[in-house]
Amino acid sequence: MELLSSTKSSGGWLKRYKHQSEAVKGEMVFAIYLPPQAEQKKVPVLYWLSGLTCTDENFMQKAGAQAMAAELGLAIVCPDTSPRGTDYPGEHDSYDFGSAAGFYLNATVEPYAQTYKMYDYVVQELPQIIEANFPVTAEKSISGHSMGGHGALICALKNPSMYASVSAFAPIVNPTQCPWGEKAFTGYLGSDRESWAQWDTCLLIRDAKEKLPLFVDQGDADNFLEEQLKPEALEKVCAEHNHPLTLRRQPGYDHSYFFIATFINDHLQHHAKALNLC
Amino acid sequence: MELLSSTKSSGGWLKRYKHQSEAVKGEMVFAIYLPPQAEQKKVPVLYWLSGLTCTDENFMQKAGAQAMAAELGLAIVCPDTSPRGTDYPGEHDSYDFGSAAGFYLNATVEPYAQTYKMYDYVVQELPQIIEANFPVTAEKSISGHSMGGHGALICALKNPSMYASVSAFAPIVNPTQCPWGEKAFTGYLGSDRESWAQWDTCLLIRDAKEKLPLFVDQGDADNFLEEQLKPEALEKVCAEHNHPLTLRRQPGYDHSYFFIATFINDHLQHHAKALNLC
Repeated sequence: MELLSSTKSSGGWLKRYKHQSEAVKGEMVFAIYLPPQAEQKKVPVLYWLSGLTCTDENFMQKAGAQAMAAELGLAIVCPDTSPRGTDYPGEHDSYDFGSAAGFYLNATVEPYAQTYKMYDYVVQELPQIIEANFPVTAEKSISGHSMGGHGALICALKNPSMYASVSAFAPIVNPTQCPWGEKAFTGYLGSDRESWAQWDTCLLIRDAKEKLPLFVDQGDADNFLEEQLKPEALEKVCAEHNHPLTLRRQPGYDHSYFFIATFINDHLQHHAKALNLC
Repeated sequence: MELLSSTKSSGGWLKRYKHQSEAVKGEMVFAIYLPPQAEQKKVPVLYWLSGLTCTDENFMQKAGAQAMAAELGLAIVCPDTSPRGTDYPGEHDSYDFGSAAGFYLNATVEPYAQTYKMYDYVVQELPQIIEANFPVTAEKSISGHSMGGHGALICALKNPSMYASVSAFAPIVNPTQCPWGEKAFTGYLGSDRESWAQWDTCLLIRDAKEKLPLFVDQGDADNFLEEQLKPEALEKVCAEHNHPLTLRRQPGYDHSYFFIATFINDHLQHHAKALNLC
């Protein structure tokens, strides 16, 4: 692991690292915020998955989460949003596919199948690295925004005993039924829609045995609300399958980090409760 | 005035406007954060002056100030850091002179003297525009970072009855004695150093009749501390002239917005007290 930067923030330290990933067969960068409590004891970790076009940096720069994380004693880890080292046909041509658009799944279509294994990276490899190298416990929660909200929800639904809690901002809850998801899943998984189901929150809810409660904020002035995000689909399937869901529609808020910054403390406190920090 | 964007943030609204400025003889963009209280009554304004390379956007995206501004009932206005519409020789060649480096003074050297009148813009024209177009009172405070900390301090020292309070993060306090200041002042004001004195905080302190207290935070791991920022010069002149100064050296903090975000709430509360908001 190579330390890229180390910056004091809200009494703790924000560090960025570069490392060789086995899951994605290349170099990856992640950011970790270590609250001041981590100098004395191990702390639990919130994994944050960012949205389309982002890197590990956006959340740490714009969400304003460090002050509350420092108060609660919660580490935050932000992975990048895709592998970066390759140059496949079309990989860098659009904002919603390829680089910075890994969709937190394991690709099966070549050439993406060679390296686009963001699900394995986020669920398996990255926590192992974090727990082996930093003063953190194995207790973890997960959250994210938009494509990263989708990522947080599928990671938690597929591994409910791994995460103490899950939350999302403006998540893509039903990617098999929206343009962003259809484009990405076709490119990464192929045209057999059967294979898509395991990466779709609304479809995973149908089969969820452990019913980890979902905590979701959605702005009602979000430009992507009707075409891409469709929170009503999540409401419907959670109601049908008796899956606990807190969906807050926030009047006037859009899809930006200003929306996230407004409500991030509620999410941090939600996770802190599940992690027995407060 | 043309509204460029309007985004809900911490219960209030962040708006960006483009307008024709008389002071700088061209188009300028500014951002204003209106806290929720502004829907019911007029609120006072904190002017925030950003540093080298910034625009009106950095502070609103990275400082995390909106939550506390919303709690206090304080509007925040962020101007741009220079005029933008021109293409003078050398204007866009370096990060520390010309565009995004206006230094909040009135240039006297051609061609910059034609448009680089950021002092007039910030002290006179912009407040008039803000007070004529938004639900704000005439009460105001001023703060800023680095070049903008210099700007906040000189604006307040030259107009102590105009501002209820002034603060700064890592300000350039003695620009006549550091490379950033010497380069900028030579380019904007010419080689006669006598004319520089009116734009230098440490030199203005000598003649300050109204002793507006200065509140300054400075990270002790700031890369620019020794060559450019020199807070000890401010300490010395304030002690000599009995000018009230609170200078906090913050251990481990650098020059970044992570430093600003860590301590911005202290500054907002400082200004809110002076503005009788708490």
